[in-house]
Amino acid sequence: MEEFNILNLLIILASAWLGGSAAKRLGYPAILGELVVGIILGPAIFGVLEATEMISVLAEVGIILLMVYIGMEINFRDLGKASWPGLLAAIGGFIVPFALGYYTIIYFGGTQIAAVFVAIAVAVTSLATKSRILVDLKLLNTRIAYVLMAGALISDTLALVIFAGITSYVDAGSIDSLGLAWVAGKAILFFIFTALAGIYLLPLLGKYLMRSNINRTLHFTLILIIVFGFSELAEIAGLHSILGAFMAGLFIRDGVFNRQISKDINHIFHDISIGFLAPIFFVSAGFEVTLKVFQTDLLLLIVVILVAMIGKIVGTALFYLPSGYGWREGITVGTGMNGRGAVEIIIAGIGLQMGIISSEIFSILVFMAIFTTLTVPIFLTWTTTWLRNRNELVHQDARSGYIILGANPLGLYIAKQIEDEQVVIVDANRDMVAEAKKQGFNSIYGNILKEETLEDAKAIEKGTFIALTGNSEINFLAAQLADDLFYIPKKIVLVSTNENGADVEMLDKINATSLFANKTELKPWAKKIGDGDFEEKTVTIEEEITTRDWIKGTKDYQNSILPFFIINAEGKKRVFHYNDVIGKNEKVVFLE
Amino acid sequence: MEEFNILNLLIILASAWLGGSAAKRLGYPAILGELVVGIILGPAIFGVLEATEMISVLAEVGIILLMVYIGMEINFRDLGKASWPGLLAAIGGFIVPFALGYYTIIYFGGTQIAAVFVAIAVAVTSLATKSRILVDLKLLNTRIAYVLMAGALISDTLALVIFAGITSYVDAGSIDSLGLAWVAGKAILFFIFTALAGIYLLPLLGKYLMRSNINRTLHFTLILIIVFGFSELAEIAGLHSILGAFMAGLFIRDGVFNRQISKDINHIFHDISIGFLAPIFFVSAGFEVTLKVFQTDLLLLIVVILVAMIGKIVGTALFYLPSGYGWREGITVGTGMNGRGAVEIIIAGIGLQMGIISSEIFSILVFMAIFTTLTVPIFLTWTTTWLRNRNELVHQDARSGYIILGANPLGLYIAKQIEDEQVVIVDANRDMVAEAKKQGFNSIYGNILKEETLEDAKAIEKGTFIALTGNSEINFLAAQLADDLFYIPKKIVLVSTNENGADVEMLDKINATSLFANKTELKPWAKKIGDGDFEEKTVTIEEEITTRDWIKGTKDYQNSILPFFIINAEGKKRVFHYNDVIGKNEKVVFLE
Repeated sequence: MEEFNILNLLIILASAWLGGSAAKRLGYPAILGELVVGIILGPAIFGVLEATEMISVLAEVGIILLMVYIGMEINFRDLGKASWPGLLAAIGGFIVPFALGYYTIIYFGGTQIAAVFVAIAVAVTSLATKSRILVDLKLLNTRIAYVLMAGALISDTLALVIFAGITSYVDAGSIDSLGLAWVAGKAILFFIFTALAGIYLLPLLGKYLMRSNINRTLHFTLILIIVFGFSELAEIAGLHSILGAFMAGLFIRDGVFNRQISKDINHIFHDISIGFLAPIFFVSAGFEVTLKVFQTDLLLLIVVILVAMIGKIVGTALFYLPSGYGWREGITVGTGMNGRGAVEIIIAGIGLQMGIISSEIFSILVFMAIFTTLTVPIFLTWTTTWLRNRNELVHQDARSGYIILGANPLGLYIAKQIEDEQVVIVDANRDMVAEAKKQGFNSIYGNILKEETLEDAKAIEKGTFIALTGNSEINFLAAQLADDLFYIPKKIVLVSTNENGADVEMLDKINATSLFANKTELKPWAKKIGDGDFEEKTVTIEEEITTRDWIKGTKDYQNSILPFFIINAEGKKRVFHYNDVIGKNEKVVFLE
Repeated sequence: MEEFNILNLLIILASAWLGGSAAKRLGYPAILGELVVGIILGPAIFGVLEATEMISVLAEVGIILLMVYIGMEINFRDLGKASWPGLLAAIGGFIVPFALGYYTIIYFGGTQIAAVFVAIAVAVTSLATKSRILVDLKLLNTRIAYVLMAGALISDTLALVIFAGITSYVDAGSIDSLGLAWVAGKAILFFIFTALAGIYLLPLLGKYLMRSNINRTLHFTLILIIVFGFSELAEIAGLHSILGAFMAGLFIRDGVFNRQISKDINHIFHDISIGFLAPIFFVSAGFEVTLKVFQTDLLLLIVVILVAMIGKIVGTALFYLPSGYGWREGITVGTGMNGRGAVEIIIAGIGLQMGIISSEIFSILVFMAIFTTLTVPIFLTWTTTWLRNRNELVHQDARSGYIILGANPLGLYIAKQIEDEQVVIVDANRDMVAEAKKQGFNSIYGNILKEETLEDAKAIEKGTFIALTGNSEINFLAAQLADDLFYIPKKIVLVSTNENGADVEMLDKINATSLFANKTELKPWAKKIGDGDFEEKTVTIEEEITTRDWIKGTKDYQNSILPFFIINAEGKKRVFHYNDVIGKNEKVVFLE
């Protein structure tokens, strides 16, 4: 057996970590740093690292596990929710650069198949820095963010479908049309079979496993067997194994296995791939890059980059026009979709391995990925500032709607104030639920600490969970459940002033934040609101300030006022809570 | 690049799973099934599976990660707690078979170094089915279980130390005494350096990471870098890389990283190694086995197996004599330590790879591992039944002592009844804590939902956590903390009869059980006990019965009685709770 070279592995892992961390610190995805590290330390420049058999085995297992994870992250429901205009833009951002990329290679004398590979590579979208850049630019709750995410998912799916078609064709070689039909038939059969297995057999297996009370590790093993089984099926169908892994990942989701176990399994795939094996792949992808292209193929390099960028931005903006959201938003979306990432490098790497694209073309595609990804935060900052200054940045939450736990006067008051939104009020007191219903609220009776109650309240679709019963521990446990099993992004919890029991520090653990940005006693305020014994006042904030500082600044009143809402420029209300910033010209509504 | 053979990997994973599950169903460790599957499907018999380059890379990464996990599971504190007699028995169970194994090989004409490898292999102890067999035989809380676990840990440590010595010597080849000193010096330097780094540098890194609030995945990546760094150091020191992985695992533990993250990382290493890569190693270990030994070396095979078994059992029993616990318990411990497992196969595999032992000797060692492991449940059933019938089975808990949450009359009553034990009572009410102190109880004031309070109560050493405040949610949250961060094995929670809020179903999630095996209202009983307004009655149980059935059987009284304790034959009291079985002739104490 070949020497098992730990030093090589160690250097690759350590440099991937350094490169990835540096990239992330600069606001870029880790993959960028990993590619650059691979280019610098690999044969292209310093030649410190080398691609051994061991590294390539680990890298291949890495992309299989990464494809499972990518598949797991794609949620058909989310795609279904993407509005038609958004969908069209995503497709436009794919087709236009695809066509341009294809003809560029043909024009430069490449083969048809190489042209398709390059076309896929320039057409793919990576949500570059995932939510990171969206967070930095405070875009997470805008319509743009939503379109961007859908765009990345759709482009991954499209890219893989075209990739499936092209690889099965390449593997088949030059054959007659009957043979070609057989090749296509096998590929289609593969997708039909895996989809059916994913939709019907997997949930059966999941149910069986739930009944037999099998542990996390065994679930993981069984899922790995399914993953490699699907991968092998893909190969039998003449497709690449990553397509099998992707299909397997697509169907391993909520509802198939026990929720807690699904979450654990998702974490394991995330950590093994992104934390261990995938960086090995991306660093070693850098090994294949040659710097010669800057001399020999500089023109092609520049054209490919331009085609990728212009095609993507203009294509997106063009197809976005029918949405009626304006060409400026279209261009903004286009700049956001301009990054290329994991899927592109994986596909380019396979093209290189299969001998379809040359080492030069591969290098060009890697540089294109690096360059376009570099542009994303810069361009997106420009375009969003532009939109923001024109007041055209439209807010939209990916998950919307509220669950309010507690049909007490405070809960009803909040429900009434949050207009236009889908609000469900949950309480374990039948009378209070009946009263809330009488007042016209959508109200559910049930014990919130039971999973069924949250299911009834459609927790999986909701964006905000507000818990304001008088029992802080129930509030906390409910928010924990909402976080753990239903991934509700925003959890706002009333914490009583009681010194014992649940405390605000515990909220961090479940990514929750305290209602009213302070410990608050429910009863006195519930009574005041119930009796109508309060005054609603509004102040306009002149300087951006965090809610906690605002509270501190009004400390003198703190026992006699309750800051309830923040109203933004568009007149939209949000509940006052700890981890929030009140913007300039926003208004605080408080009760006195 | 060599074909990336997914089919091979798929069959190995799937058959490992089948073999492992079958073995576990029969009460044996999964590794047994994996070895057997490897022998059956590998070249020895059917030749369906083969050892490709890819398989051996994954297998090698698998043993490295497995060694990290094995290291993580060894807790020096546990070793320190092992009584001297237990320690001596563990050492006896190592030295005697080691010596016998060594001379057997010398007698049969093997080299000295081969003899040492075989000696380590027969000397090693695997806790065969880990806790599984101990659970099946209801031994978990006996002194035997405790000695067994310590024995396995000590033997792993001893085996690896000797292995370290021998491999550095082999690598060095034939050299003069100065060279030999250098070889030994390097190995010693390695252990000193890694131990110092583990004790001093790792906690510093951990603190830094805790401050920088870094996520789980990055922790995992950094730990992998440390693992491969230590492995590389081991190789530089002339040792095998698994020793580096083992040393790294040894120091990745509680207190180094954030508790929650430590736990997650432990899970990841467990799942990747035991759920994915290690089975690949064990199946492929079976590939190296040849059945020819049954013809060519049958005598040696039989002698090695006999030496392994007799040496282990007699050696353990002999060295156990000074403990004064009797030779019968010594023999019982010996039969429990008779299994060989992961560490033996790993060491034998390395010996084969290095060319120190022949394929025949390797096969003999694999069959020895299989055979001795097969004997464990059978022999241990015999010996423990024998002890039990003689009433010589002594109970001892690995973690002992109680934390009682709630200084109310019920809490004090329980604390008073559990004699001889270390009990800490925690309450968030200063007056009640003061009162408890006055009555002579070890009592602590603090909010139980803060980690510090549990630290103060030395939760990490305690065996049982009883939460009986009137607030079921606080009880539940506290038990969750005790489970999550302090791994307290037994959590008994008072659940109020309230229909809303925390319910008994939620207890399963945190491996807790309900106090009094029923929903119970605290206040009325607290008052009765506080006022001394109750009668204590005792019934003797004639037929083994679960606590829940006992409760059902006495349903008529259910509102007027409170089953408090179960007293066993030795007069020891345990708190009455849901997941328990009342044995024949045990007594139930209840209040009326």
